[in-house]
Amino acid sequence: MAKKLQGQTITLNNPPQIVNVGTIAGPEESRGPLGDKFDLVTEDPKLGQDSWEKGERKMVSEVIDLTFGKASVSPSDIDIMLAGDLLNEIVTSNYVAKSYDIPYLGLYGACSTLVEALGLGSLFMDGGFADSVLAYTSSHYQTAERQFRYPLEYGVQYPADKQYTVTGAGAYILGWMGGQVQISHITWGKVIDYGRKDPNDMGIVMAPAAADTILQHFDDTNREPQDYDLIVTGDLGQIGSNILNSLMQEKNIDISDRQKDCGVIIFGEDSKKHGAGGSGCAASATVVGSTIIPEIISGNLSRVLVVATGVLHNPILLQQKDTIPAIAHAIVLEKISGE
Amino acid sequence: MAKKLQGQTITLNNPPQIVNVGTIAGPEESRGPLGDKFDLVTEDPKLGQDSWEKGERKMVSEVIDLTFGKASVSPSDIDIMLAGDLLNEIVTSNYVAKSYDIPYLGLYGACSTLVEALGLGSLFMDGGFADSVLAYTSSHYQTAERQFRYPLEYGVQYPADKQYTVTGAGAYILGWMGGQVQISHITWGKVIDYGRKDPNDMGIVMAPAAADTILQHFDDTNREPQDYDLIVTGDLGQIGSNILNSLMQEKNIDISDRQKDCGVIIFGEDSKKHGAGGSGCAASATVVGSTIIPEIISGNLSRVLVVATGVLHNPILLQQKDTIPAIAHAIVLEKISGE
Repeated sequence: MAKKLQGQTITLNNPPQIVNVGTIAGPEESRGPLGDKFDLVTEDPKLGQDSWEKGERKMVSEVIDLTFGKASVSPSDIDIMLAGDLLNEIVTSNYVAKSYDIPYLGLYGACSTLVEALGLGSLFMDGGFADSVLAYTSSHYQTAERQFRYPLEYGVQYPADKQYTVTGAGAYILGWMGGQVQISHITWGKVIDYGRKDPNDMGIVMAPAAADTILQHFDDTNREPQDYDLIVTGDLGQIGSNILNSLMQEKNIDISDRQKDCGVIIFGEDSKKHGAGGSGCAASATVVGSTIIPEIISGNLSRVLVVATGVLHNPILLQQKDTIPAIAHAIVLEKISGE
Repeated sequence: MAKKLQGQTITLNNPPQIVNVGTIAGPEESRGPLGDKFDLVTEDPKLGQDSWEKGERKMVSEVIDLTFGKASVSPSDIDIMLAGDLLNEIVTSNYVAKSYDIPYLGLYGACSTLVEALGLGSLFMDGGFADSVLAYTSSHYQTAERQFRYPLEYGVQYPADKQYTVTGAGAYILGWMGGQVQISHITWGKVIDYGRKDPNDMGIVMAPAAADTILQHFDDTNREPQDYDLIVTGDLGQIGSNILNSLMQEKNIDISDRQKDCGVIIFGEDSKKHGAGGSGCAASATVVGSTIIPEIISGNLSRVLVVATGVLHNPILLQQKDTIPAIAHAIVLEKISGE
């Protein structure tokens, strides 16, 4: 059997399928260019609950239940749930998991969580440790602003190029049958810190981590950008995307003609209100689920490198003058060839 | 090949070895009954740094470097690091990971992190996704009190039976050679919530999760308590241990003659100062590493069920009148029979 690990990249012998995926998005996101692609949208970021946190949780529960329905899967079919989010102690994921009688592992990869969860889920599948996996993640503008920066009620004025946390969630079911897209490779990232300290500049912090993981992926797989129809980053935003492309060009690798960023896609390039673009776990979770996977299914794309990026600080460390580290994990999504 | 997954339990076809383990403990812990068993002890919980958080981080770095030395392993031999801790956004683990040129996955299982990391590490090994894994976790009295309850400087009076967060860290290296203890089974837990709201009563919150996972483990493996020399829980403390034993007896399973708790072991049963016992990721990480594994190696124990428990709330949710969920994951440690 071929060796699965090369450098930081795992080639799956038995690539699991993304059997189904569901997405939900908040008010700002539903008014953006992908508005009609999400399975569910909500105008109320509290979803009728009495706190933002409970609203975020309800959003996740709704999208999981919807995805079970779309996939004709019942919770009792799922062997393991893998999830994480931005809130301290990943409480959204933990509290949602209470509702399901399914084993659960909490992950913290900040905005890289989607790929951390899908990557680990693929290992459960390929290794024979599970035959079905539920991966989910979420982020929420109001809960994240309060926790990482300032409560919105303070009315703090932010720089115009700050990123905007996406309100939304995605649920992904991995299995062996019925899907049209498979996960073929995973490249795990390292923690990278270029010494930045501004919690508004997330794209700048994460771009070097994205570059490191993409270069490593090409090196490990002997592939080049032309092997991918699309290289989609999680939430670098416009500024971070530009830096990523520059960093890649310094290594004589040009990905600029095929790199797009979920944070830019979700609000559109011209959105002034959302600064440099969207961020948060839900940026990649909702864009990949609502748009990238359908484009693979329709045949517009046949092979996509998804690179989810995350910052790994907390506000107390910034008060203590620490710098902000980042990480990026990548997976390859491929159309399953019908035979 | 035998099916690996039965219920919530994975039987590893190729059980990985715990090649080596290192532990470090703080001042209170080093004066307890295990004082002379830790590899490193520190009288200064800041380890000469200018904040508690940096002290916790230095503790982890020191124990990782020590463990590399004990195992004669260099960081470049490690395929993946799996880690988590109690701080928001698991910043201790993230910032320590910056120092190593090794792929990293952040986990959040609160005080169950040791077993979440060793369990996932075992899947990486058994599945052919890694040939060596570093798992590490930590907790720290001063950083945890400030974050989960009150800063120590407030001088808040706590109930006498509150648990006491262990200051310490453990680093575990998994590999294929040179160890005397292997991981044979993993039972992943579910999130369990009995509706408790007092963040001082961690043992009470976690005991039902521990019971659920232990019962599930026996059911999945067709084993009974007598198959284990020791069933060691993570940080239930004395009160939580009593509740666990009662819950098990309600199911007509008696584990009381072989159940011990790392939180009780570390400070001793008679310690008044530490309330119902120790808690925190480091309770299981330091006790299993310094005491349980050496007892397996020496032959005093031959098979041990390690059940690490964690609470999954954050303080904001308690302010919002939410309840506290918990989880427990289990692994089986066995002496490798010399042949």
